[in-house]
Amino acid sequence: MAPEKKNLDRAFNPRSVAVVGDKQQTNYMWLRSVSTFQGKVYSVQIDERELPGIAALGVPNYPSLVDIPEPIDYVIVAVPRKVAPKVVADCIQKKVGGAAFFTSGFAETNTEEGIRLQKVLTEMAKAGGLNLIGPNCVGIFNPSIGLRHNAEQYAGERGVVGFISQSGTHASQFSLVGAIHGIKISKSVSYGNAIVLDSTDYLDYLAQDEETKVIGLYIEGVKDGRRFYQALKEAAQIKPVLLWKGGQTDAGARAASSHTASLATSQLLWDAMIRQCGTITVENLDQMIDTIKLLLCSKPASGLRMGLMSMTGGQSVISTDAFVKAGLEVSPLSSQSYEQLATFFNIIGGSYRNPLDVSSNFASLELVMKMLNILAEDENVDAVAMEVSVGFSRDGRRGPAFWDGLVSGLADYKNKSDKPFFAIVTPAHREATAIEMRNQLTDKYIPSFPSFQRAATAFKKVVEYYHHHSVAEV
Amino acid sequence: MAPEKKNLDRAFNPRSVAVVGDKQQTNYMWLRSVSTFQGKVYSVQIDERELPGIAALGVPNYPSLVDIPEPIDYVIVAVPRKVAPKVVADCIQKKVGGAAFFTSGFAETNTEEGIRLQKVLTEMAKAGGLNLIGPNCVGIFNPSIGLRHNAEQYAGERGVVGFISQSGTHASQFSLVGAIHGIKISKSVSYGNAIVLDSTDYLDYLAQDEETKVIGLYIEGVKDGRRFYQALKEAAQIKPVLLWKGGQTDAGARAASSHTASLATSQLLWDAMIRQCGTITVENLDQMIDTIKLLLCSKPASGLRMGLMSMTGGQSVISTDAFVKAGLEVSPLSSQSYEQLATFFNIIGGSYRNPLDVSSNFASLELVMKMLNILAEDENVDAVAMEVSVGFSRDGRRGPAFWDGLVSGLADYKNKSDKPFFAIVTPAHREATAIEMRNQLTDKYIPSFPSFQRAATAFKKVVEYYHHHSVAEV
Repeated sequence: MAPEKKNLDRAFNPRSVAVVGDKQQTNYMWLRSVSTFQGKVYSVQIDERELPGIAALGVPNYPSLVDIPEPIDYVIVAVPRKVAPKVVADCIQKKVGGAAFFTSGFAETNTEEGIRLQKVLTEMAKAGGLNLIGPNCVGIFNPSIGLRHNAEQYAGERGVVGFISQSGTHASQFSLVGAIHGIKISKSVSYGNAIVLDSTDYLDYLAQDEETKVIGLYIEGVKDGRRFYQALKEAAQIKPVLLWKGGQTDAGARAASSHTASLATSQLLWDAMIRQCGTITVENLDQMIDTIKLLLCSKPASGLRMGLMSMTGGQSVISTDAFVKAGLEVSPLSSQSYEQLATFFNIIGGSYRNPLDVSSNFASLELVMKMLNILAEDENVDAVAMEVSVGFSRDGRRGPAFWDGLVSGLADYKNKSDKPFFAIVTPAHREATAIEMRNQLTDKYIPSFPSFQRAATAFKKVVEYYHHHSVAEV
Repeated sequence: MAPEKKNLDRAFNPRSVAVVGDKQQTNYMWLRSVSTFQGKVYSVQIDERELPGIAALGVPNYPSLVDIPEPIDYVIVAVPRKVAPKVVADCIQKKVGGAAFFTSGFAETNTEEGIRLQKVLTEMAKAGGLNLIGPNCVGIFNPSIGLRHNAEQYAGERGVVGFISQSGTHASQFSLVGAIHGIKISKSVSYGNAIVLDSTDYLDYLAQDEETKVIGLYIEGVKDGRRFYQALKEAAQIKPVLLWKGGQTDAGARAASSHTASLATSQLLWDAMIRQCGTITVENLDQMIDTIKLLLCSKPASGLRMGLMSMTGGQSVISTDAFVKAGLEVSPLSSQSYEQLATFFNIIGGSYRNPLDVSSNFASLELVMKMLNILAEDENVDAVAMEVSVGFSRDGRRGPAFWDGLVSGLADYKNKSDKPFFAIVTPAHREATAIEMRNQLTDKYIPSFPSFQRAATAFKKVVEYYHHHSVAEV
């Protein structure tokens, strides 16, 4: 194991954590965030007015990192920027595993003082071999050991998705919004200005991390394009990697420069590079969550041909448009399927060409499953998607017991079929009910989406991913 | 007033309604829908088993339309398709104002019997001068008089949006989902197979309707392209018209044929036609709702240049990308604005180039309003958009009282400024809180959106609309 790898292990899996500079003004946000940490937590603070608040949280405080009477694996630094060099020196002297600097006000401010201080930090950390994360970041989230960067994050459980984010907001949002979609984190890091460790380092680490099955990245810029490209290519051969680039437009790149002092990259060059890596490109948080949901919960995708089921004719039309516009296909079914459907399907007020516009045929669980099984067995269908609506599925004449049975039926169906299956919970004025339905599907690992567009966009990415990798592996 | 116009008035504003063929099997869906109707309701049903249920609802029943002892303005027909010709004959004899046929099973089934019956209905209705709406539709919704096609729709109040939909589902969804976004209906019609009256007729009617300030259309096909084009052009000169076309793809057009027996139109021809009319094209229900929301609630848009405020740096980057990708601009502010901002804005952890990445500057209501006012007065800014997040705006250290003050402040700001203003309630794991925030903004007529993408897409459409019409009117 290379020494760098060992050191990142200490930072990602610490047994001891120190928080430097937490304060009342932020309601001790860092000490509260790590209140779930399973190892030892220390505070470092010299401002005497802060000490009673820290003591009230039950955290032992020291005037300096070097005074703490045991090794420290991970440090969170929230001091004013002028104090940062002193803390870097202490981290080096203390031989910590890694230090995440929440402290900001460096090159991203485009001020002489900020640029100067960033240079000082960089040189000190590199010379001293310090794994400096950030600055201008929120650092590591490792839920299994309760190491959090946000007091709303979960703890004591472990997911399978690694997330690497140049933005603290996106790291928090992905962990929190992802969780309500059933996506939990294995390990995550927000890394801000990336003056010492860059996305490439974290990517190398999570590519090798056995707890991490899928990696998501939010990146505003990379320091060494060639090294990043190599790491991305290697990681994508091991597990699915999804990449969300911030600053794709000139104005967005300008904002990225004010945010993390990232330099603009040519979007054309970037796109070309990414395409070759077999990485999945996403454009926003929704797409990141939607695509990971399919990767984690549905069977591998083998082709573009959708078998659709919708509740009404109007939804048949617009769902078909949505899937086809996203690059998928909605073609006629096999003659065998049509023969079977003709024996029982009432076409007055419904239609079964594909989509199956079920309407009054949505009458019993047996009938619904019979129709879904026809789609699963159809040789012209690669994947099955079904609309579930509040009116038809949950609050209709069939009542909640019908819905509970349907969810169980769909879970069995998804598990037994070789084809990807997912659901669309169509927009409803009963928003709370729709959320409840999504949660029930999520509990059974049935991927669901709030619109045909979102489902189609995500599924197209997944088909492309499997296509690239099956071709590449042949 | 032309006689056709007079007749549509009777159908849209009836004083008496008859429901033909409602039954227990659907839980008397039609009689329940019109239970809020302010005029007289009659039932027509000959099946004796249905009579107790109808009596229990307190609705007088007759064996035939012609037996009802007073004039009938609007008829809802839910009989088996074979009985439809008899009901058409009765409607003609009774000289009703209009009849919406929920009855389906006609040309959309592509069966000999369905096609034959559709032909019979068409010829009878045309010969007898009957305003036949549909068949295969849910007909009219006029909330001010309590005439509904869905028992969940509101009644006793009136909005300003007219909606014309070939699909019953989209008519229902637009009315119900629109309502939670503050968009209420003046008059709406779902018209299915359009064998007698087509979208053009309803469009002509709503273009002249004084209660209707904006018209939304969902169309799968038109019978007479030239007439439709002329009507659309004229309507768009009177009020904003938004058009959502179902069946834009070949497979979608095939689904439309199974849904409403609509014939495919060339999408290229269609797009060219629409562009010339100054109509707003939307791709789905969300875009329809989002764009109407801006048209109704925000000041007219004069240009593409956005002044943005976001809560954090990561959101600055991705909001800029979203607006620019949608065709808007996020350019530097005026030097005057920068001078003002420099006097108080803390750039450590924030930035004010545009977006204003406010972070710790989001400290007091005064400060927030000060920054927004700078954007409103900046000569390089045509419109202002602000992120409000659950964490910063509602549940942060500032607490709910801060949020209540902010909502009032934003409402004043929106009213006083000449520039369009809207908010983005960013994704949150606290979904219920985000919904509550949206509702509070909606109550104050502040347009809000659940993502930067949705806001940007809708606002671009609105800018184009005002540009087209200001150029056309010069």
